[in-house]
Amino acid sequence: MNVPWVLIFPEIAGVISLALAWYFSKLVMKEDPGNERMQEVSGYIEKGAKTYLKVQYKILGIFVVGLAIALLFLINPGEFSWFTMIAYLIGSVGSMWAGYMGMIVGVKANTRAAQGCSISVKKGFDISFFGGCVMGLAVVAVALIGVSTIYWIMAAIGVEKPVSVVLGFSFGASSIALFMKCGGGIYTKTADVGADLVGKAEYKLPEDDPRNPASIADNVGDNVGDIAGMGSDLFDSYVASIVAGMLLAAALTQVFTNNAVFIILPILLSTAGLFASIIGIYIIKIWKTDDPGKLLNGGTYLATLVFIGLALVFILIARPFVSTANDVNALWGSWLCAAIGLLSGIVIGWTSDYFTREDKKPTRDMAHAAQEGDAVVVLSGFSYGLLSVVPPALGIIVAMGFSFFIGSVLIGSGVYGVGMAAVGMLSIVGTIVSNDAYGPICDNARGIAEQGELGEDVIRIADSLDSAGNTAKAITKGFAIGAANLTVLALLFSFREEARSVINNLGLIPIPAKIEIFGLEFPNIFSLLNPSTTLIEFIQKGIMDLLNPSVLIGAFIGVVVPALFSALLIMSVQRNAAKMVDEIRRQFEESPKILTGEVAADFNKCIDIATRGSLRELILPSIISILIPIAVGILFGITALGAFLAGAILSGFVFAIFMANAGGAWDNAKKWIENGNLGGKGTDIHKASITGDTVGDPFKDTAGPSINTLLVVMSLTASIFLIFIVAVGGGVGLLGFP
Amino acid sequence: MNVPWVLIFPEIAGVISLALAWYFSKLVMKEDPGNERMQEVSGYIEKGAKTYLKVQYKILGIFVVGLAIALLFLINPGEFSWFTMIAYLIGSVGSMWAGYMGMIVGVKANTRAAQGCSISVKKGFDISFFGGCVMGLAVVAVALIGVSTIYWIMAAIGVEKPVSVVLGFSFGASSIALFMKCGGGIYTKTADVGADLVGKAEYKLPEDDPRNPASIADNVGDNVGDIAGMGSDLFDSYVASIVAGMLLAAALTQVFTNNAVFIILPILLSTAGLFASIIGIYIIKIWKTDDPGKLLNGGTYLATLVFIGLALVFILIARPFVSTANDVNALWGSWLCAAIGLLSGIVIGWTSDYFTREDKKPTRDMAHAAQEGDAVVVLSGFSYGLLSVVPPALGIIVAMGFSFFIGSVLIGSGVYGVGMAAVGMLSIVGTIVSNDAYGPICDNARGIAEQGELGEDVIRIADSLDSAGNTAKAITKGFAIGAANLTVLALLFSFREEARSVINNLGLIPIPAKIEIFGLEFPNIFSLLNPSTTLIEFIQKGIMDLLNPSVLIGAFIGVVVPALFSALLIMSVQRNAAKMVDEIRRQFEESPKILTGEVAADFNKCIDIATRGSLRELILPSIISILIPIAVGILFGITALGAFLAGAILSGFVFAIFMANAGGAWDNAKKWIENGNLGGKGTDIHKASITGDTVGDPFKDTAGPSINTLLVVMSLTASIFLIFIVAVGGGVGLLGFP
Repeated sequence: MNVPWVLIFPEIAGVISLALAWYFSKLVMKEDPGNERMQEVSGYIEKGAKTYLKVQYKILGIFVVGLAIALLFLINPGEFSWFTMIAYLIGSVGSMWAGYMGMIVGVKANTRAAQGCSISVKKGFDISFFGGCVMGLAVVAVALIGVSTIYWIMAAIGVEKPVSVVLGFSFGASSIALFMKCGGGIYTKTADVGADLVGKAEYKLPEDDPRNPASIADNVGDNVGDIAGMGSDLFDSYVASIVAGMLLAAALTQVFTNNAVFIILPILLSTAGLFASIIGIYIIKIWKTDDPGKLLNGGTYLATLVFIGLALVFILIARPFVSTANDVNALWGSWLCAAIGLLSGIVIGWTSDYFTREDKKPTRDMAHAAQEGDAVVVLSGFSYGLLSVVPPALGIIVAMGFSFFIGSVLIGSGVYGVGMAAVGMLSIVGTIVSNDAYGPICDNARGIAEQGELGEDVIRIADSLDSAGNTAKAITKGFAIGAANLTVLALLFSFREEARSVINNLGLIPIPAKIEIFGLEFPNIFSLLNPSTTLIEFIQKGIMDLLNPSVLIGAFIGVVVPALFSALLIMSVQRNAAKMVDEIRRQFEESPKILTGEVAADFNKCIDIATRGSLRELILPSIISILIPIAVGILFGITALGAFLAGAILSGFVFAIFMANAGGAWDNAKKWIENGNLGGKGTDIHKASITGDTVGDPFKDTAGPSINTLLVVMSLTASIFLIFIVAVGGGVGLLGFP
Repeated sequence: MNVPWVLIFPEIAGVISLALAWYFSKLVMKEDPGNERMQEVSGYIEKGAKTYLKVQYKILGIFVVGLAIALLFLINPGEFSWFTMIAYLIGSVGSMWAGYMGMIVGVKANTRAAQGCSISVKKGFDISFFGGCVMGLAVVAVALIGVSTIYWIMAAIGVEKPVSVVLGFSFGASSIALFMKCGGGIYTKTADVGADLVGKAEYKLPEDDPRNPASIADNVGDNVGDIAGMGSDLFDSYVASIVAGMLLAAALTQVFTNNAVFIILPILLSTAGLFASIIGIYIIKIWKTDDPGKLLNGGTYLATLVFIGLALVFILIARPFVSTANDVNALWGSWLCAAIGLLSGIVIGWTSDYFTREDKKPTRDMAHAAQEGDAVVVLSGFSYGLLSVVPPALGIIVAMGFSFFIGSVLIGSGVYGVGMAAVGMLSIVGTIVSNDAYGPICDNARGIAEQGELGEDVIRIADSLDSAGNTAKAITKGFAIGAANLTVLALLFSFREEARSVINNLGLIPIPAKIEIFGLEFPNIFSLLNPSTTLIEFIQKGIMDLLNPSVLIGAFIGVVVPALFSALLIMSVQRNAAKMVDEIRRQFEESPKILTGEVAADFNKCIDIATRGSLRELILPSIISILIPIAVGILFGITALGAFLAGAILSGFVFAIFMANAGGAWDNAKKWIENGNLGGKGTDIHKASITGDTVGDPFKDTAGPSINTLLVVMSLTASIFLIFIVAVGGGVGLLGFP
């Protein structure tokens, strides 16, 4: 296939971005790492985080190899499966690297940021922010270079379906992200909840007190959960949004005359987004203000505006490559859809912000509910959390409806319009990741300032940076959930196109009994299982009629899965936190001198509990996310599998937003009370607000954010194992109703 | 239409059932109502409950008249709309009567049951149970007589669509049930949470202590929420299951040769269920055992077995009325489906039982979680609640899959099979309602025994009756949610059939500009709105393709609605409970002698707060449940409306089961601790378990059970306003994507 040379732009953007990441990391590293105690604490955190990742990557290694072999045999056999497997491995490694790198910079930046806070607000901000940028820029660069290089090479050597190989890359990124996100989420909340329940509630120790044996584990948790987990997560959504658009364009052969241009258009739009993010970061660097909240949000808004302009430039660059009036219209339509997508993302972010900000009604109401006791503050957060689902749902509906409409009118394909909206929404992910990684760095900096005894003033500055991070995070979190949702919708549409073509082809091409790979012969698992060839019109048309019982069953299972998944993750946190609580109590009881500061607490024991527990607990939820879609497809058929994904996407959206916002609001209601309102710290009202916050912890940091990744992994699983599923289940499913 | 004379059976069953209800009420009334103080308390409760219902019925009066007028003008105009309106009024009045009557008997039985407990366990049990039976039998009798009489008359006088008139009856029952359920649920928890938060938590008063100003309101709440609300609720599900089956048979004209037989088959099967319930109640009456749990569950299992046998008898009775081999097979198939439905209901009930019983792992784990504080017990209940959704979801999937399969093979229509499964599941609703109404009577009896100072022994007996009621309730609650869910699925299928026929007809028949009703001419709202006549193949085939954006949007809105609805109800409870808390604190502060028992608390003030608050708060959630489906249908079209219902059914199921089970388990974990485990009453562990219970209160008694009714009302709204929706929105919807 003829690939336009414009694919050079993402490569250039990626290289610039990597260079900047390297530059920022140097910038951070040359700062003063603070006094000895601070370096010691930072060293503990770094060691704990590395231990965790080392053990996790060992487990992941086994998993990756196993899945790579499965891919080799279960997806469409031949050369193609080798390429896909290699792309999968690259994606996996890329995702692991994104997490590792972000974390390393994070643990280097935290102590420096703490020291920076003793100089000025802006200094502390800069170190935290540029620390975050290293990860933001590197993640996006790797994703963009990976996608465009793999596609370019595959297209150049003439692989039949180059985009499907890129799908392998995306699947690698997502499956690793799921492990990182679940494991990190369980780890961070095991430590946090454990530290809070005993240290804060029972022994009245302040946050991050070095006497608390779980304090280091808590800081490690911020890094492995919020930085490494989140980096992998956004890496995966970002790649998935691009791949969904590419898959759609590749399938819609009759819509575009210059198909190749529309396949790479998602990459070009994402390139515009990366440049926009870089400009946004540059403006933050030169902006002379001491208000960290203004800096973070200003950067996001600016990147949005710049993206809309730069995307237009890339549309103009792509224009000479299309030859028909229809295709020219389609380019304009794609630009509009991308802009709508990004703007909707911002609006969705605002609604999350409203529901979680301490100066707005919901959080205030929750704080006041604390006056009536623990139960009422829980109920208040629960109901506001559920209510907060409505505005972003409307946002997604409007974004989808509009982009589908524009897609239908201008592009000639509504679904491609939705795909472009998803690409637009995720285009400035560089900025989003930078803002997000900023948060845990400040959080750690605050802890290190406390442990390094830098004094109240410095801690207060670190606190103000942390609080700005929380506000920015509220916007980016809603944004990320919305973007992931639109992405999985686009994946769902591309799944249908894939399914239609697979089923049409399978009906014509007999499946061979043996597969030859590089001269070696293997029995073909498909032919052994004697696939049914009853391929009904229904499936061929790609219709998922909700009132076909198989489809209804698929949707039913799909709706239940996010609930099951959330339950498993929350239970994991609980089980682990209980072990942590026992350990902390044991330490305090066996050596009461820990509490007076005469004896150092045994941090390693707590780190060990968090590490081993989270790795053990992440296995079940991760495995089911891959096995359930395959099982649904085999048992109830392809249309049921589509409905399963739709059901999971819809209910997953409700659970993700509900949990993220309820958790965020409880946290901020507690902080507002801690700032001296309603009696402040130490009162019963404060205690009630801590209960709310503790309930919200696994909501907002474990279950809520993992649902996104769950949805992406399930969607990609359905697409990548499609041929296997059709071969075993016969398309209509072993138990399927025609 | 020729109606088989066998419709005489439901009439006879209804009359026998009413006679028995009258006999049981006499039996209860002739018992000793206890000492003066008990009668005084019972009088307060009766007065409070009557005040609430009086005010509520006034508001409902306005609502009913308004909706009746809307029906007259907005549904298919002509004679038909008059009949439907009258049926609607009868259904409304029937539902109100069911609630009122159950409550009256309840408030008479409670004091007598308390006195009965001072004689023997069995005496106390009998009075409570037969008090409950009065409502159980009366509700089913009215429903069965109503449905069969309306259908018989309509068919006899030759109305074109007699079943659609019966739909009016069902809509009346459901819309009232929604008000009763929401209002009662808010009332009962306003009082309960208020009484607990101040009385129990702050002032350490025992449950039902007469010094607590909210104690009477709490008892009133049990009656208006658990008896009146629940009676209306099951009345409505029961009627809806029968109507769904009738509508399906009426629409499936090409499936059955002897269509009329299959239209009345749901009524006949329900008649078998009523007889089975009566036999179950009779066995409980003569069974010589002192174990109340065994009696209640034994009655349910027995009724199940008897139903399966009696249904066979009715199939044999119906057999001479069918003339073809296909129709004979269809009768057998219907019997099988009904049996599968009922058995699945029992299995679903067991799973709810497992997740909420104090001697099973989930509740025990939750009790142990209380050792780690308030937040952990909340998290534990939350995650077990979510987990508990999985088994009943599988139950529904299996019931639906099997009955669809049997329906396809034996009946020639899978959807009719699902309809019969729903009818089977709800057939023994007489037993279910009796068991359910038993609970609040015991609960009240315990309160009256406490207030009437009957001594520890009597209170302990009343407690044991109450606890058996809770266990029975766990089974019946899961059962009721499952049954409602299968019913709304059947309604969804019948909605599709209706939509198909409406759209096919509208395409052919021009709509007149004026309507003549009894000689008076009215302008036709349909023709004014200039309906679009773009009726695409898609709609005509009744396909709801999940990947059509309108359908996806409909499903998305549907999935969000139960979350929104739950949030609104929980917020209502919270707002009201806060007022109640203020009032109780005010009373204690202004007259401290209330606490020493020297001055009587002002019960009326608390009753007033609960009454007025709950009525004000129920309006918004009730209205949206009628307006949203109409809006979705008009804006996005008929297929989107179907998907909206499907989305709401699926996510509603998740929320309903989650809330009911989490709430039940928290309650029982608390009770287990109160029975002396883990340190018993007064400890921090007990306090944490009270937090769990208080969070669970609005879950299990307000939001959870109201969702069922919400789903039924929305489904019926879609069917009954179908012609209006198509006329205004043109079938494809004003904003719909074709």
